[in-house]
Amino acid sequence: MSPALTPKKLVTIVCEAELEALLLPELKRQGARGYTLTEARGQGDRGVRDGAWRASSNIRIEVLCDDAVAGKIVDMLQTRFYADYGIVVFVVDASVLRPAKF
Amino acid sequence: MSPALTPKKLVTIVCEAELEALLLPELKRQGARGYTLTEARGQGDRGVRDGAWRASSNIRIEVLCDDAVAGKIVDMLQTRFYADYGIVVFVVDASVLRPAKF
Amino acid sequence: MSPALTPKKLVTIVCEAELEALLLPELKRQGARGYTLTEARGQGDRGVRDGAWRASSNIRIEVLCDDAVAGKIVDMLQTRFYADYGIVVFVVDASVLRPAKF
Repeated sequence: MSPALTPKKLVTIVCEAELEALLLPELKRQGARGYTLTEARGQGDRGVRDGAWRASSNIRIEVLCDDAVAGKIVDMLQTRFYADYGIVVFVVDASVLRPAKF
Repeated sequence: MSPALTPKKLVTIVCEAELEALLLPELKRQGARGYTLTEARGQGDRGVRDGAWRASSNIRIEVLCDDAVAGKIVDMLQTRFYADYGIVVFVVDASVLRPAKF
Repeated sequence: MSPALTPKKLVTIVCEAELEALLLPELKRQGARGYTLTEARGQGDRGVRDGAWRASSNIRIEVLCDDAVAGKIVDMLQTRFYADYGIVVFVVDASVLRPAKF
């Protein structure tokens, strides 16, 4: 692979579209230096009791960042949003070309 | 990384938009507990003989699941859809915050 | 995981929507055999001096390919586009079902 690449974390958040205005400033506060947002739709369990999939209008937000910022974002989401919102977060290892940007 | 994260698989399926109604129940049947869908477009080879890229209206479906379900989804796609449809599937390692959901 | 899967690279490019017509032929020239494109929006630093996030209409292009082609795409982007455009590139390890296609 190109020597120009350095390891970073790709944090992907899928949540209700209404959360955008609330979430973006929080991401920046935790150290995110940018984001990519795509419109999405999806379904998922709300809990163990109700196995049915719910349809909803979602957004999918990606943030490239270092390990420390990824951890802070995950912790912030867990503390502030998980109890009240249908939100999914996953982290993937990524090699990024322009590391100085993140 | 946050101790709240646990390893899962992110299965991404890119296919013709018309396949949505056929595919989603199959994913659930293989054990998927939710999905994220985005509208996409793309091009790819249909086969070796014709090297031209074809444009088409696609969907991009993501499923977070454990190893076993990922394997079942891949096998189902290969058995039921690969011969007849332009479909792409790839699997990525992901660390997921809310493992009980998948 | 299914034995039908083989390791590839998933190259994701996020850039201004206007770059599409310029970028796609370049990807093909470097050996990409297909792509998936989704509309996106996002913000990021333009540089060190201006820390504000800029909003813009973006596209998100994904290419599945082998290591060599991924390296060529990254090098091409760095050489031809990085100085003049707001562009983000990252590479993720992916297991792909239909390897003959990429």
